[in-house]
Amino acid sequence: MTAVRQLDAVLAACDERRERDLDDLMRLLRQPSISAQNIGVRECAALLTGQLAADGFTVQTIETPGHPMIVAEWRGAPGKPTVLIYGHYDVQPPDPLDAWISPPFEPTIRDGKLFARGAGDNKGQIFAQIAAARTWLETTGGLPVNVTFLIEGEEETGSPHLADFVAAHRDLLAADLVYTSDGPVHDDAHPQVVYGVRGLLSVELRAQGATTDLHSGNWGGIAPNPAWTLVRLLGTMLDADNRVTIDGFSDDVRPPSEAVVAAMARIPLDQHNALAAIGLDRLPPPEGLGYFERLMTRPTLNIAGFASGYSGAGTKTVLPSRATVKLDMRLVPDQTTDDIFAKFRGHVARHAPEVEVIRHGGMEPSYTPIEHPYAAIVRRAVATGFGREPVDVPLLGGSLPDAVFTRTLGLPSFLVPYANADERNHAPNENIDVARFYSGIRTAASLFAYLADA
Amino acid sequence: MTAVRQLDAVLAACDERRERDLDDLMRLLRQPSISAQNIGVRECAALLTGQLAADGFTVQTIETPGHPMIVAEWRGAPGKPTVLIYGHYDVQPPDPLDAWISPPFEPTIRDGKLFARGAGDNKGQIFAQIAAARTWLETTGGLPVNVTFLIEGEEETGSPHLADFVAAHRDLLAADLVYTSDGPVHDDAHPQVVYGVRGLLSVELRAQGATTDLHSGNWGGIAPNPAWTLVRLLGTMLDADNRVTIDGFSDDVRPPSEAVVAAMARIPLDQHNALAAIGLDRLPPPEGLGYFERLMTRPTLNIAGFASGYSGAGTKTVLPSRATVKLDMRLVPDQTTDDIFAKFRGHVARHAPEVEVIRHGGMEPSYTPIEHPYAAIVRRAVATGFGREPVDVPLLGGSLPDAVFTRTLGLPSFLVPYANADERNHAPNENIDVARFYSGIRTAASLFAYLADA
Repeated sequence: MTAVRQLDAVLAACDERRERDLDDLMRLLRQPSISAQNIGVRECAALLTGQLAADGFTVQTIETPGHPMIVAEWRGAPGKPTVLIYGHYDVQPPDPLDAWISPPFEPTIRDGKLFARGAGDNKGQIFAQIAAARTWLETTGGLPVNVTFLIEGEEETGSPHLADFVAAHRDLLAADLVYTSDGPVHDDAHPQVVYGVRGLLSVELRAQGATTDLHSGNWGGIAPNPAWTLVRLLGTMLDADNRVTIDGFSDDVRPPSEAVVAAMARIPLDQHNALAAIGLDRLPPPEGLGYFERLMTRPTLNIAGFASGYSGAGTKTVLPSRATVKLDMRLVPDQTTDDIFAKFRGHVARHAPEVEVIRHGGMEPSYTPIEHPYAAIVRRAVATGFGREPVDVPLLGGSLPDAVFTRTLGLPSFLVPYANADERNHAPNENIDVARFYSGIRTAASLFAYLADA
Repeated sequence: MTAVRQLDAVLAACDERRERDLDDLMRLLRQPSISAQNIGVRECAALLTGQLAADGFTVQTIETPGHPMIVAEWRGAPGKPTVLIYGHYDVQPPDPLDAWISPPFEPTIRDGKLFARGAGDNKGQIFAQIAAARTWLETTGGLPVNVTFLIEGEEETGSPHLADFVAAHRDLLAADLVYTSDGPVHDDAHPQVVYGVRGLLSVELRAQGATTDLHSGNWGGIAPNPAWTLVRLLGTMLDADNRVTIDGFSDDVRPPSEAVVAAMARIPLDQHNALAAIGLDRLPPPEGLGYFERLMTRPTLNIAGFASGYSGAGTKTVLPSRATVKLDMRLVPDQTTDDIFAKFRGHVARHAPEVEVIRHGGMEPSYTPIEHPYAAIVRRAVATGFGREPVDVPLLGGSLPDAVFTRTLGLPSFLVPYANADERNHAPNENIDVARFYSGIRTAASLFAYLADA
C-alpha cells in the first residue's frame, strides 16, 4: 500500500506545479512539428527528448525510414508492472490559417481553454502523462511502477513505421499494459475508458466495359455496362438487414460478452438527438439492433464512393466504359484484414471474375477485454483524476493502430481520452480544456500508484 | 404509268443540272444558321424560302416560340399521294474551328467530298429533295405527286417546338407518307431504308442519407448509406439476362414480325469486328440473342451515371450523404414514355419510397411496318437512285422525333440517309460525298414517280 499512501502527496504536488506544467506544454506547442510537411519535426523531437532527459528518463531517439521514434524509460521499480505509454509529438497541418482566432503555434488561453495546433492532439495529452511521471520522481524520488514512453512523429500521416518498429523492438517495449490518451471524449460530463477499436479494410472495385464511352442509343443492349456489373456484384454482398453476405465474412464475429452488453447499455446517449443532429429519425434495418450494438458488434461494408458515367446536370445518353466503387469494411475483434480480404477477393472471383479488386490500406481491429484485471485499475485512476466514474466504451467505431500493442505485443491496452469533446483536432482552433489537462495529470499519477499496489 | 415514263427524262435532267444544284447547295452552306447560338438562322430561312418560291413552291414561314418553320407546298396533283418531306435548315456550332481543314462556312470540295458545316446534316440532304422536285417542275411542268416540305430551324437544339407545331397544323401537313433524309449510312456500300427509332426516357434517382457526409468509422452501421439504397433498388430492376424486371415494363413489347426477323438477318455486319473495335470479344447475357435483336426488339435500362461519395485517388473513409443515378431507357415500338415512366415510378415507390424520381426528357419510339405498301416503293426509289438494292433497317438504336409523324399524324414514315458513313455530322470537317448528293437527288426524283404510279 506504499504507493497509494504516497499518492495524496503526489497529487498535491501536481496541483502545485500546474503553472509550470502548463508553461512547459506551451513551450512544446510553440514548436511546430508538422509531419506531413516535414516542418519542425526534428526540432520538436529534440525539445521533447531534452525535457524527458532533464526530468530523469533514459531517452533514446531511434531513427525510422520516416521521422524518429522517442523512447524514454524509467526502470527503477523492479518487480512492479511496466506501463507502456504511447503518444505522438507530430501535429496536423494548421491550414486554413485564417480560420484560427489566435495563431496555431502561439498558444493562447481563452475561456479556460488552451488553443494551439497539437494542444489536444496529442502534445497536451502525452505531456500530461510526462508531467505526472516527473512529479512522482520529484516528489518521492522514484515512480511506483516502471514506465516506458513511446512517442512517435508520424501518427498524423498514418503511423507508417509504427508496426515495423514495435515488431522489431519487442524487448525494448516489453511491458504489462499499454496506456494511451488521445482524441476527445464524446461528452465532457463523462470521462471514458476505451477498450478497443474496429479494424479497417479499404478496397476498390473496377469494372471495364468497352474501351470507350458509347452512345446509349447505338450500343444500349449490345455493349456491357460496367456500372450494372458493379451494382449486381454489390447486390450479392449485403442483405436487406445490412448483414454482409460474403461467405465466411462473419466467421470470426463473436457475440459480445455479458460485460460488454452491460457496458453498452450504460453508455449515456440521447439516441433521438444524436440521429436528429444528422437529419435522421430512425435507425436503418435491422429492427431491434441497438445503436452501440451496431457500432461495436457487427462488421460493416460501406460504399465510400461509386463513380461511373455522367454526373453533371441534366442528362447524357452515355453507356459508360468504366465503373469504380470504393468500399471500406470496419472489422470487429478477432477478424483480420488478411482473412477478410481473401474472402472478399474470393467472393468477387466467384461472382464477377472480370472485376478488378484493389486492396488499399487497413488496420487490424483491437480489443482488450473489459473484464481484464487492469481495467478496474484504469477505471479507478480515471475516477480519481476526473472526480467521476468513467463510462466504459468497449470499442470505438473508428480505427487506430492499437493492434500493434494488443496483437503484436500481446498486451492489454487502454485508451483514456483527456481532451474535451470540442477539442477540434485536425481543425482550426484546436484546443484542450486546461482543467482537463490537469485532470489528465492526476489520472496518470493515480494510475501509477494503483498499478503498483494491485 | 405516266410518271414512270417521264422519269428517264427527269433523271437525265437531274444529271444535266448537277453543277447548278451543287452551286445552289454551296450558296446555302455559305449562310451560317447555328440555332444553338442564334447565328444567321433567319437569314438562312430567308435564303431558303426565296429559293423555294423561285422554284415554284407556295412557301410559308411560320413563327414558333423559337426559330421559324418553313412549309413549302406543291399541290398540283389532285388524286395523287402527298409526300411530307421533313428536314432542317439549322446546323451545329462549328467549334473547334482550328480542327477544320477548310473553314466551316466556305464550302470546299476535296477528294469528291463537299466539306462545310451542314453539308450532310442536313442542308445537303434536304436540298437534294428540293433539287429533285424542282427538276420535275422544270422538266415536266409539274410533279407527279403532291409535295409538302417541312423544314425546321431547331433540330440541332432538340426540336423543342416540332411536336406542338405538328399537332397544331394537322391540316397543313396532311399527307400520305413522310420521307426524311438525315444522318449517315452505316456503310457506304449499302444504301438503307430505316423504318423507325427506339424511344428514349431519361430519369434520375436521388437518395439521401444523413444531412452531411459522415465518418464511416463513427457512423458505419448506424447511419443509412444512400449508395447502398440505390444499389439495392437497381438490383430489383434488371435480371441476370439484362431483362428489365419492373412490373409491366415489357407488356407492350411485341415479338418482331417475320419480315423484321428476315430483315435483321439480312443486315450486313461483321459482328466480330464491330465488337473488337470497342474492345469486346463477346456479347453480354443472354446467350443466343443476336446483335440486331438486342438493338431492335428489347427495351433497355442503361445506367448513364452513378455518383456517390469519394471518387478521387486512394481512399476516404466517408459514409456519403447522397447518391444519384442517371438512367436512360430505350423503348421499342408500342411502348410509350408516359406508361413506362408511370411503371418506373411505381416500382420505385414500392421498393424504395424514400428515393426521389426525376423525369428528364424523352422521345416516343416510332415504327412504320416494313410490310407497309409504301415501303416497297421507297426501296425501289433508293435502288434506282443509288444503283443498288437498299438494306432494310427496321429500327435505329438511337432516338429521333419521328413519332410526331407516325403517332401524331398517323403516317408511315421512312428515313433514307443519303450521307456517307464518314459524314462527320456534329464534328469538324463535316462533309457529304458529292456523288451521294447526286444519288439522293435521283432517289427523290424516282420516289415521286413510283408513288404516283403505285
